[in-house]
Amino acid sequence: MGCSRKIEDLMAHSSWIRKMFEEGANMKTDGRGPVYDFSLGNPEIEPPEALKQRLAELAASDTPGMHRYMPNAGYEFVRRSIADYLKEETGLSFTAESVIMSVGAGGGLNAALKALLDPGDKVVCFRPYFVEYEFYVDNHGGKLVKLPTDDSFLPDLDAFEQAIDEKTRVVLTNSPNNPTGVVYEQELLDEIGGILKKKSKDNASPVYWLSDEPYRNLIYDADRAPSIFKAYDSSIMVTSHSKDLALPGERIGYIGISPNAEDSGKLFDAMTFTNRILGFVNAPALLQRLVAPLQGMTVDLGWYKRKRDLLYKELIRYGYEVNKPDGAFYMFPKAPSGDDIEFVKKLQQRRVLVVPGTGFGAPGYFRISYCVNDDVVKGALPAFRQVLED
Amino acid sequence: MGCSRKIEDLMAHSSWIRKMFEEGANMKTDGRGPVYDFSLGNPEIEPPEALKQRLAELAASDTPGMHRYMPNAGYEFVRRSIADYLKEETGLSFTAESVIMSVGAGGGLNAALKALLDPGDKVVCFRPYFVEYEFYVDNHGGKLVKLPTDDSFLPDLDAFEQAIDEKTRVVLTNSPNNPTGVVYEQELLDEIGGILKKKSKDNASPVYWLSDEPYRNLIYDADRAPSIFKAYDSSIMVTSHSKDLALPGERIGYIGISPNAEDSGKLFDAMTFTNRILGFVNAPALLQRLVAPLQGMTVDLGWYKRKRDLLYKELIRYGYEVNKPDGAFYMFPKAPSGDDIEFVKKLQQRRVLVVPGTGFGAPGYFRISYCVNDDVVKGALPAFRQVLED
Repeated sequence: MGCSRKIEDLMAHSSWIRKMFEEGANMKTDGRGPVYDFSLGNPEIEPPEALKQRLAELAASDTPGMHRYMPNAGYEFVRRSIADYLKEETGLSFTAESVIMSVGAGGGLNAALKALLDPGDKVVCFRPYFVEYEFYVDNHGGKLVKLPTDDSFLPDLDAFEQAIDEKTRVVLTNSPNNPTGVVYEQELLDEIGGILKKKSKDNASPVYWLSDEPYRNLIYDADRAPSIFKAYDSSIMVTSHSKDLALPGERIGYIGISPNAEDSGKLFDAMTFTNRILGFVNAPALLQRLVAPLQGMTVDLGWYKRKRDLLYKELIRYGYEVNKPDGAFYMFPKAPSGDDIEFVKKLQQRRVLVVPGTGFGAPGYFRISYCVNDDVVKGALPAFRQVLED
Repeated sequence: MGCSRKIEDLMAHSSWIRKMFEEGANMKTDGRGPVYDFSLGNPEIEPPEALKQRLAELAASDTPGMHRYMPNAGYEFVRRSIADYLKEETGLSFTAESVIMSVGAGGGLNAALKALLDPGDKVVCFRPYFVEYEFYVDNHGGKLVKLPTDDSFLPDLDAFEQAIDEKTRVVLTNSPNNPTGVVYEQELLDEIGGILKKKSKDNASPVYWLSDEPYRNLIYDADRAPSIFKAYDSSIMVTSHSKDLALPGERIGYIGISPNAEDSGKLFDAMTFTNRILGFVNAPALLQRLVAPLQGMTVDLGWYKRKRDLLYKELIRYGYEVNKPDGAFYMFPKAPSGDDIEFVKKLQQRRVLVVPGTGFGAPGYFRISYCVNDDVVKGALPAFRQVLED
């Protein structure tokens, strides 16, 4: 029978994103011309020059023990450099004991959820949501509750307040958002924080706010991301350098625990422990050393903004309904016919790969991941126009 | 309350290894002289020169996309180079679809167990066993069954045969063994394989053999490790380059699925999937590229053998009861008083750190991890002698 029944079931509902990525890989070798692949969040931009230099320095270093185990939370000097960055950003007293280095944001989210959830605990998120959340929460016995958003993909706060009950341990948000590109403003974060404060009091136990922020440095029209840490005490941020330093294959990220979180010391110990027992053990040593001095550095945002502006302008001109993204590198237009899966197949026939909104719990939309070279965007525009006439 | 009740309970029974490692770190800064630390499997030997050269080449490379996502199983060219190595070693038809790159052996074991286990399924192992197995099996809803071994730490095959029932999905072995240094000979592997074949027939469903082999290239008196792949068809090997290339902090390993395993294609798909949804996503890109051309390479075994020989000779001379290890870099002597925890504390007072056998499900013994520099071994010998008079 091969794998377990449970995994067999889960695989049957697996990721549309990977499915499109893999179909795209096949199409790319079918000899029938170019493929315009907007399926995966796999930036075609190269890491900053400073990263290459840093890597060369590390490779040339004769420091003994560079590749050995370190504490499961990661090197203390690396965690301290990140804590300093977060402290400067928020004004809160982050220390090395507020930061756990992780195997990307995916690793960090799993370590955090395993540390927080008892079987049957609820995790609340908003639609559309990153498809992996369903698996991550299920991995640790939790139950993912998906709440509605409005036409601009912003949370319905009344529904949110009503949905939090005594079984709700975690609220999981993702801003800048995948798949919509929406950025939650500080005012909205403060409102969410206010509700969580009230509900934690009702529950006599904190509802933890877990914020998945791999795109936190990819915001177009503001200097820096609004901060959950300023909005709520018992907050935990998970991020990675996959997007800001264009390193998604390297799996390096971190968990940041608010120094004001209830039981913050215990959370640090627990997440260090779960990072170990889930088999991550520690984030890769070389990658920790690589990113430590590059905190706050980001690839050229103009490279993304140019594509957002062109795509948005043209899609609107063709007649698509699109919410203009403020961050990340995703756009989430309405499927013109209303049937996202049918529409995505039509686009695929024109050799353009996107992901149906169904894959994000939001049928009727489709996701364009525009972290691609300019010629891919330009090359695909005729297909986006022509498909409307199919 | 901070973390979940479940994690709170697990942490209370957490690892003796890490406990000793952390107490050691404190002792090292107490200003009261040297500490002889045999607590962790964290080799003090440096990686081979060829690895440093390869890393420098990669750092200097201008290949675009080196740090991007690749298929969740890892780069095809890396998996192919490992498949070629396994094919040469076993004569079996390994292909790139037999290999999944993992975040160390810990990551590989978790991906494999999650793919194989339904809630309540049993995993059988032998005492003493690597302490993390308990967590890894529990992570995925399984139940770890620990079977006895004889005075030489070899499996009691009668007990083994009786213990396998219709709920047994996986047999988990570890040779060369942590904590004993025992190496299972091919004849023993064949006997285990024979029992598994019979039991799979009885169950009308394969019992999978999962072999944890991070020390497979650290064998002193034979050219190569005996092979489970030759002993049983439905076998899966998990290993890493933490020990053979001295890279434990970098988290790079792989899962090898026998091409003869029942449903081997489905196992590959399932473990690729679980590697993704557990948040590993993929093994670090740079590390995959680093190890691909270094298959079969191992640090200087003489560096370890020298220490094994000296330690073994001296401990026997002092009157310890010790099984001479054939591989890995662990020795597992009897605690002279019979009380391993008391004995370990006595050694600690003499500034020597070892781990009590209790931490491996084998009270009455203690583990010496001798992957340390010669002066640590030499420096500790007087304490190992004197403690017998305490």
